[in-house]
Amino acid sequence: MRQKNIRVIHYGLGPIGSLIARIVAERPGLEIVGAIDIAPDKVGRDVGEVIGLERELGVIVSADAAATLRSAKADIAIHTVGSYLERETPRLKAVIEAGTSVVSTCEELAYPQFKHPQIAAELNALAREHGVTVLGSGVNPGFIQDTIAVVLSGICRDIRHIRVYRRVDTGERRENLQRKAGAGLTVDEFRAQATAGGVHVGLTQSLQAIAEAIGWKLDRVEETVEPVVAEETVRSQFFVVQPGQVKGLHQMARGWRGGEEVLTLDLLMYIGLAEPEDTVIIEGTRPLEMRIKGVHGDSATAAIVVNAIPRVLNAPPGLVTMTNLPVVSATLCDVRTKVVG
Amino acid sequence: MRQKNIRVIHYGLGPIGSLIARIVAERPGLEIVGAIDIAPDKVGRDVGEVIGLERELGVIVSADAAATLRSAKADIAIHTVGSYLERETPRLKAVIEAGTSVVSTCEELAYPQFKHPQIAAELNALAREHGVTVLGSGVNPGFIQDTIAVVLSGICRDIRHIRVYRRVDTGERRENLQRKAGAGLTVDEFRAQATAGGVHVGLTQSLQAIAEAIGWKLDRVEETVEPVVAEETVRSQFFVVQPGQVKGLHQMARGWRGGEEVLTLDLLMYIGLAEPEDTVIIEGTRPLEMRIKGVHGDSATAAIVVNAIPRVLNAPPGLVTMTNLPVVSATLCDVRTKVVG
Repeated sequence: MRQKNIRVIHYGLGPIGSLIARIVAERPGLEIVGAIDIAPDKVGRDVGEVIGLERELGVIVSADAAATLRSAKADIAIHTVGSYLERETPRLKAVIEAGTSVVSTCEELAYPQFKHPQIAAELNALAREHGVTVLGSGVNPGFIQDTIAVVLSGICRDIRHIRVYRRVDTGERRENLQRKAGAGLTVDEFRAQATAGGVHVGLTQSLQAIAEAIGWKLDRVEETVEPVVAEETVRSQFFVVQPGQVKGLHQMARGWRGGEEVLTLDLLMYIGLAEPEDTVIIEGTRPLEMRIKGVHGDSATAAIVVNAIPRVLNAPPGLVTMTNLPVVSATLCDVRTKVVG
Repeated sequence: MRQKNIRVIHYGLGPIGSLIARIVAERPGLEIVGAIDIAPDKVGRDVGEVIGLERELGVIVSADAAATLRSAKADIAIHTVGSYLERETPRLKAVIEAGTSVVSTCEELAYPQFKHPQIAAELNALAREHGVTVLGSGVNPGFIQDTIAVVLSGICRDIRHIRVYRRVDTGERRENLQRKAGAGLTVDEFRAQATAGGVHVGLTQSLQAIAEAIGWKLDRVEETVEPVVAEETVRSQFFVVQPGQVKGLHQMARGWRGGEEVLTLDLLMYIGLAEPEDTVIIEGTRPLEMRIKGVHGDSATAAIVVNAIPRVLNAPPGLVTMTNLPVVSATLCDVRTKVVG
């Protein structure tokens, strides 16, 4: 077992970053040694206070990423800033160059090889050079529309089609997710927001991760996103959506091989969705159907990021993905017992 | 990508071994180079014929394990002989000493550390010495009452109790499984068979695998097996079970921490069970419930053993388990593309 605590930097203290930091603060063997955020209401305050703990942690939130990375000498940074890889690459590079491994919730980093092969290669080379490991993780992409399907494929001899359905009631979730799903927009505004990339990100990454894991080369991939329009008024803590306005979205990623659609990822999320559930259906000689209830996105993302820490520290240097790491399990013990060397 | 085919020996050609060999024969990049079985009706015949292929494979089934292991120079042996590790250890050692990695369906090898720490240590040392990797796998233990729960735990922040239920209609399965589940016995005969170890094996191994993966030290583990008695006549292809006779079994493994039961594995299998299904329930701040339909034990075991081959070949030498390997996914491609080096 490793003797010294695992030193953690939080790069981003928004709702997800703060939730992650609360889990890190409670998990034995982990120690918060730095926190980076630019929000004026956070900078200069103690992390414990900022993330809503009852106690101070003796670490001050700083807007100066470079100085924090340099002085904290962390083992791992938890990066929860943005969804788009191009925009996050300079921040990720700074972390790597400080000799710090990364778990990031950047959706496009979950499986960057197809959409951003150049950046993926750069990050991989840089991480190897600095002897650190980089992982994009989270619940979706990272778990519920990819890893679970990949795990289930392990008991299959042949597969004709994999279908993954995620059904989320955004009314139960934070404001930003409701907003990303288009709550309160007109259909035209929704289409403009979708074109600008302001919706949920990562379905294509999940699709490619599944295809790569099971060894399928796809001829064609298509992603679509459509508004779900309210027929009656629906309300959440943050929005009142009138009939005719958008209450959420329906996003699909589809993959074809030899003219046949073989992979279908289907994400439906809106305020007031009645039966949230996730389903994986594998069609083949022995069809399988898996249903999961209770996957709360924010909570699941925060948990899996923390649970991934020992896997990342044990992995060889470079860019890794959820489907080529050993299974990320809960780590309900001193995390140091799970770290080799 | 590896250039040469992956050379496979089948050690055991019973129903599961034969099903596995049929999958190996159809999967590109794998090549059957040897087959060991002592059954007089198999020895001396071509493997293709023995396993029910339409074609010969040019490999003759031999009862001489040592000679076959020596001459075949295989990369991996698929061992499907028995459930009990003590009895299989000499066979496993012979494979390892021939420089051949192993995937075995020996249930006690799925997680041997607790019940057989001495044998586990010996096999681990021997495998390292010979530079090969040894894995015990299958559907149960190996997947449905352990790996799936471990995977699901990855999105959990805290866990109070994990419950895994497996419900199998043995009427749909091979004769030997119906027999192992006690079909047609009197209650007294069932108890004698259970005492002699002639029932389903592996529940305790699954329990320990989960506990170890998530970092729980258990104070106490208990395994029980009870007969399920037919109230009406039930029939399968192989048995007619009269009222009052045993139609199957109810097996449980339970684990405690600090006086609380925290892990409960529950296996119910009998002829005529109406709704076969597998369920994982995780109790905690965010409860989760997963249900899977369609997990046919023989088919799933055969598939996961073949799908595990590239993971075993890529793993460091020694004894490994399903929960410390990267996720075993389907390998619906030339298996060599999944093998490093």
